Amino acid sequence: MAGPVTEVAHRVNYSETDQMGVVYHARYLVWLDVARCEHLRTTGLSYRELEAVGYRLAVSEANLRYRQPARYDDPLRIRCWVRDAVARRVTFGYAVEHLEGRLLATATVALLCLDTGFRLSRLPADLLGRLDPTSDPVRL
Amino acid sequence: MAGPVTEVAHRVNYSETDQMGVVYHARYLVWLDVARCEHLRTTGLSYRELEAVGYRLAVSEANLRYRQPARYDDPLRIRCWVRDAVARRVTFGYAVEHLEGRLLATATVALLCLDTGFRLSRLPADLLGRLDPTSDPVRL
Amino acid sequence: MAGPVTEVAHRVNYSETDQMGVVYHARYLVWLDVARCEHLRTTGLSYRELEAVGYRLAVSEANLRYRQPARYDDPLRIRCWVRDAVARRVTFGYAVEHLEGRLLATATVALLCLDTGFRLSRLPADLLGRLDPTSDPVRL
Amino acid sequence: MAGPVTEVAHRVNYSETDQMGVVYHARYLVWLDVARCEHLRTTGLSYRELEAVGYRLAVSEANLRYRQPARYDDPLRIRCWVRDAVARRVTFGYAVEHLEGRLLATATVALLCLDTGFRLSRLPADLLGRLDPTSDPVRL
Repeated sequence: MAGPVTEVAHRVNYSETDQMGVVYHARYLVWLDVARCEHLRTTGLSYRELEAVGYRLAVSEANLRYRQPARYDDPLRIRCWVRDAVARRVTFGYAVEHLEGRLLATATVALLCLDTGFRLSRLPADLLGRLDPTSDPVRL
Repeated sequence: MAGPVTEVAHRVNYSETDQMGVVYHARYLVWLDVARCEHLRTTGLSYRELEAVGYRLAVSEANLRYRQPARYDDPLRIRCWVRDAVARRVTFGYAVEHLEGRLLATATVALLCLDTGFRLSRLPADLLGRLDPTSDPVRL
Repeated sequence: MAGPVTEVAHRVNYSETDQMGVVYHARYLVWLDVARCEHLRTTGLSYRELEAVGYRLAVSEANLRYRQPARYDDPLRIRCWVRDAVARRVTFGYAVEHLEGRLLATATVALLCLDTGFRLSRLPADLLGRLDPTSDPVRL
Repeated sequence: MAGPVTEVAHRVNYSETDQMGVVYHARYLVWLDVARCEHLRTTGLSYRELEAVGYRLAVSEANLRYRQPARYDDPLRIRCWVRDAVARRVTFGYAVEHLEGRLLATATVALLCLDTGFRLSRLPADLLGRLDPTSDPVRL
């Protein structure tokens, strides 16, 4: 249970804000997606390559807890790690943090492996072997 | 436990799709937001009016289960109801369905009541009185 | 030059606003897309059907003039018409109006017809025959 | 006419694609916004600071030409420069390029300076003095 944690940086842009003056809640899912793809890339098999060989990872569940608002121009760090990977399903954990350290949000996202016909499929063995789970580095 | 269930219609547009040929998972949160605002409107106090008198409802938690994909041009129905409303917090339940009846996704979203200074605040009494909870009409 | 003008209704939702308290400028392109698809549908050949028979319409040019801001919960009307349709290219005109009548934005969008291999292609003859151009009903 | 050209890097994420397998045309406007904000930052007055002292820059016109599609995971470079800056209005030019060099899109965006009451306002003199125009480095 000591798999890697991937970090990506993001600066909040204007399109992500809403008239409350904070980041609109749906935008976080995009950041999580970006962090997840970078995590896959670091395992040696990018999501683009995974699609090229006939697999899809489809989100089956997403759970987000918003703790403090993110604001325009805030420099953020999104951390991503594998919580669990079994035959047909992988679950990721996430922490969204202000660069100064405040925890803004946490999340988990579960994805199912599909083939190009959208049928449930086993994760390719070489990918599954690289998805080392780790204990949550923050409380979700 | 027999509060109202609000329905809104939506036809999937091209901007909501991704290269997997289905609706991108973050878009559902926007549909839930639209359904929630229509639900508030039917109680007699729209979200626009709520903001005008100094309140904000900020999403503190969102939990989504994606069951079947939605596709471009699909006609959808999003149903929304109150699951629970207490002093400073209201939780909504949702079902996203194809007009032909298939259940595509379910969700719950919790919102906290804030004042204009982003301080936790009690829901205005007249709003709280109108937020009648109902039992989930579908299994979430 | 008396082709049809299609109207679609839209109520501004919260995800479309930004921290300036108005609709973020990129969102208008989505409304135009929705209006364009409804226009195609009224000609008798929907964009979904067009894709099903192997064609794509790819945006090659977009020109927008923002005249007055749209705001959260505003009821809007988007009007769309064909300005010009030739062998491989069709250009649409648009007006975005508040239901009370104020003109908020105007636009033109040109699209190229592609085949599934992204090669420039002639518009199918039956579609081209239905794309009756009309004179601009508002000054663009 | 030898003002600076700012470059920002961006890798296309999945949320930006559509079912045509390319980036949806509205997303480019967000990239232009990010590049414009970085350009302002390099002049010494960020857009966040500009808002903090009571100004808004509202998009009044956007013109985009899409030349080649951008695809998922493509590494991009967005270049931004000032074309023209007068009392109440500044116009930017943009080029969106694949890191390997292909030109994907060009654009111009005009913004009006507003005060917090959305009244047309002169650009602050210190900002105007820093908005050095430059000749277009690519043909728009």
